[in-house]
Amino acid sequence: MLLENERIDDLQLKGLKIIQKKDLFCFGIDAVLLSWFADIKKNSNVIDLGTGTGIVPILLHGKYSAKKIVGLEIQKELCKTAIRSLELNKISDKIEIVNGDIREVENIFKRDSFDVVVSNPPYMKRGTGLINPDDSKAISRHEILCTIEDVIKSSSFLLHDNGELCMVHRPWRLVDIFSLMRKYNIEPKYVRMVYPYYMKKANLVLVKGIKNSNPELKILEPIYVYNSDGSYTEMIDKIYNRDGEKNEK
Amino acid sequence: MLLENERIDDLQLKGLKIIQKKDLFCFGIDAVLLSWFADIKKNSNVIDLGTGTGIVPILLHGKYSAKKIVGLEIQKELCKTAIRSLELNKISDKIEIVNGDIREVENIFKRDSFDVVVSNPPYMKRGTGLINPDDSKAISRHEILCTIEDVIKSSSFLLHDNGELCMVHRPWRLVDIFSLMRKYNIEPKYVRMVYPYYMKKANLVLVKGIKNSNPELKILEPIYVYNSDGSYTEMIDKIYNRDGEKNEK
Repeated sequence: MLLENERIDDLQLKGLKIIQKKDLFCFGIDAVLLSWFADIKKNSNVIDLGTGTGIVPILLHGKYSAKKIVGLEIQKELCKTAIRSLELNKISDKIEIVNGDIREVENIFKRDSFDVVVSNPPYMKRGTGLINPDDSKAISRHEILCTIEDVIKSSSFLLHDNGELCMVHRPWRLVDIFSLMRKYNIEPKYVRMVYPYYMKKANLVLVKGIKNSNPELKILEPIYVYNSDGSYTEMIDKIYNRDGEKNEK
Repeated sequence: MLLENERIDDLQLKGLKIIQKKDLFCFGIDAVLLSWFADIKKNSNVIDLGTGTGIVPILLHGKYSAKKIVGLEIQKELCKTAIRSLELNKISDKIEIVNGDIREVENIFKRDSFDVVVSNPPYMKRGTGLINPDDSKAISRHEILCTIEDVIKSSSFLLHDNGELCMVHRPWRLVDIFSLMRKYNIEPKYVRMVYPYYMKKANLVLVKGIKNSNPELKILEPIYVYNSDGSYTEMIDKIYNRDGEKNEK
């Protein structure tokens, strides 16, 4: 099951596991927070744009009862890894991994065919920060093959009216996210700021937009990751362990 | 000094006071937070768009050493009240109250002539909520004579490059604020969410945009207003009492 330089991590959620390369981009708290924030309704059709190793679909499967979960990923090697994780978990019938380009969803899926799009897109602008010489890592981190605009534009194609786009990103791109969502008729409706500590600047932001909805943003209760002693907050413990509980909002 | 139905409130800041009508729109925590957030540099030229009773200019005068502070207000009666507050405080030479329309700043002030614009504009969209039968209150609360777009468009005219627009508003308008700032070349750079309690939804938002600046938003440390027992937090006590201390950022 495992290739050289791979490892299996236990997701501590209904026995689910994931295969990750030891030296590649590994999933982090952003994927966990996104899965929690998405709060998928029963029987929804869900797609994860830029699914990587498939971590978000696997977490969504563990937390909710979606009808169908698709993970779209442009990197063939990552798709293969994701597919082996599905086999490992015996959930190949629940999640479909599609090898394809976010910018070409129109050629792969039907318009208005999803209830929910989730995405944890690359955070870094092209040309900013150190570009990792390892291509796969760079593609996951930098806007090389996919920008925020690509994700939002494709989401607008894939979602039906009132369908939801859930994203996790860095606060410094929030103005872009809001502007681009509006540009493609997805109205930002819910935001949760993620603060590492009680009195620190936010370092992640969760945004939920609804296609063709009326404007009225809610800044929901904040998320704090660490207590002052460096341990996880009660809220994060709850988010990591919740098995299908409903979101608070 | 006082007209019928007026009262004098002590601002607990260098002995400054303000005259307010007992039954009209009285200043609240939003004005105090805005003054603190504005963090005015020495010798700045500052204007408050929609100054009402002049509370924000008076607080700014108490906190900082601006070169000039102007308060623009469309309601003549409020201007008169503001001017009497300046006389009461013996600061008529420090603050100028101008009776005029935010939508007509081009006819009143010179282009690029201010370092900082502050504004605590009406929160309610025209046609939403109960319109107060008392006109003055309605004008202060609803976008009857001035919308967010008016404030931002006029700010862009008044500010020189790198000049700052500081606003306090409600979270539900944050998407509009970001989009309109961009439209008028004011890039949103700093945001502080104001949460009434540690684990509640935000009910105010402070936004600072900089004219013709590069995009990179920072979500600064949050502000919590109340402790769980309903008393003010240490931070709010500090904000209310700070006399010219520098802002944290």
